[in-house]
Amino acid sequence: MSQNLYDEPEFFEGYSQLARSQGGLDEAPEWPIVRTFLPEMSGLKVLDLGCGFGAFDRWAIDQGAESVLAIDLSEKMLAEARSRTSTEHIEYIRGDLTELDAIPANFDLVYSALALHYAPDIQRVFVDIRKHLVLGGRLVVTVEHPIFTAPSNPEWTDRPAWPLDNYALEGRRITNWISEGVVKYHRTIATYVNSLIATGFSLKELVEWTPSEEDIERHPDWEIEVHRPMFLLLGADAT
Amino acid sequence: MSQNLYDEPEFFEGYSQLARSQGGLDEAPEWPIVRTFLPEMSGLKVLDLGCGFGAFDRWAIDQGAESVLAIDLSEKMLAEARSRTSTEHIEYIRGDLTELDAIPANFDLVYSALALHYAPDIQRVFVDIRKHLVLGGRLVVTVEHPIFTAPSNPEWTDRPAWPLDNYALEGRRITNWISEGVVKYHRTIATYVNSLIATGFSLKELVEWTPSEEDIERHPDWEIEVHRPMFLLLGADAT
Repeated sequence: MSQNLYDEPEFFEGYSQLARSQGGLDEAPEWPIVRTFLPEMSGLKVLDLGCGFGAFDRWAIDQGAESVLAIDLSEKMLAEARSRTSTEHIEYIRGDLTELDAIPANFDLVYSALALHYAPDIQRVFVDIRKHLVLGGRLVVTVEHPIFTAPSNPEWTDRPAWPLDNYALEGRRITNWISEGVVKYHRTIATYVNSLIATGFSLKELVEWTPSEEDIERHPDWEIEVHRPMFLLLGADAT
Repeated sequence: MSQNLYDEPEFFEGYSQLARSQGGLDEAPEWPIVRTFLPEMSGLKVLDLGCGFGAFDRWAIDQGAESVLAIDLSEKMLAEARSRTSTEHIEYIRGDLTELDAIPANFDLVYSALALHYAPDIQRVFVDIRKHLVLGGRLVVTVEHPIFTAPSNPEWTDRPAWPLDNYALEGRRITNWISEGVVKYHRTIATYVNSLIATGFSLKELVEWTPSEEDIERHPDWEIEVHRPMFLLLGADAT
């Protein structure tokens, strides 16, 4: 069972204040690229792993998806997602992303945004996801980038530079983000990519998100992010 | 035309002293992994881009390859390679890795070790390579890892940490390695991977080389390399 920090009051309150929590997809800087990884949504059966407040799920139905099964470990997140949702084509259920056995299969699209860096064993997760996808189905995953998750001391130096260390040392990282003691799992890009390939996927897109010049014009404080990719975005087809 | 620094006396002399120049494949720390990316060599037609002293080419013939066409920009490297080679199944020719039009096609394997970070336009190189491979043929490439090539000040900090900056800013990097003013081209992992996919390859292996515990036992001074991958190794099939 993954750490359920999103149900802790302090964390939930902090998370709720994030731009992406309040503004949804339009406030997620990586969304314009992620959207290009998605197939034509019309008629698709979608599984969302780590749905949060459900912004993606409502977008999917708006785009014509047939149904969305949206899973999250946090009761509070699910309650908020349900309160924001009017369509009956989205089912929100509580579940651990690393235990999908009880979930039905035959999805056309599995989507997971900024959740799988909480899973200790990514290859096991990809095996499970593959079982839930039809042949040729699509997987779209975003995670914190390995360069972002690796360091023992993840604070910009004066230069500024990102003090990368322990890149090859995969495993738990405890960081202070919103609240203290947040447990994430660092692994290399190679582990993400090879785990996909080993579990029956063909990699189609890999993006290391950093801000574009346009992004920086609108958000000058993002300029520092050109030095270090913050998100890893993956698109793959089930083979 | 790429910079031909290997024909500069100071650089050539320094390069010739490297363990990998003197000892060949067994002195290249990444070789045991690269070898696992290679197909059964028996009967293959092989193209080697950036052959250096020809260690790989002689190994390929020893393993039963039918022929090797080995290209390098440096006359001095080629002269040394020829002097070390007795078989007639290897043809060493002078050429720029970014201008392959005059080279015959239909190779089963294209191999390039630590050379393509000198090429300014990797997608163009992969287009050329794809033209020279049979359908289902294999490409094995090693380059300096993007984390290694990115920084404006590529020196360990005291901690030690690797001061990563400018990761998203692709293009020329001028470093002092063996001699001063060595021009390399930094690009992201995403650019390597997506360029492969866009030019007709299916990515099969991606390794970010760092030393194993066994490596560190034999070479204690390599321990620092767990903090930052030095080489990116790619294996892909022509589709």
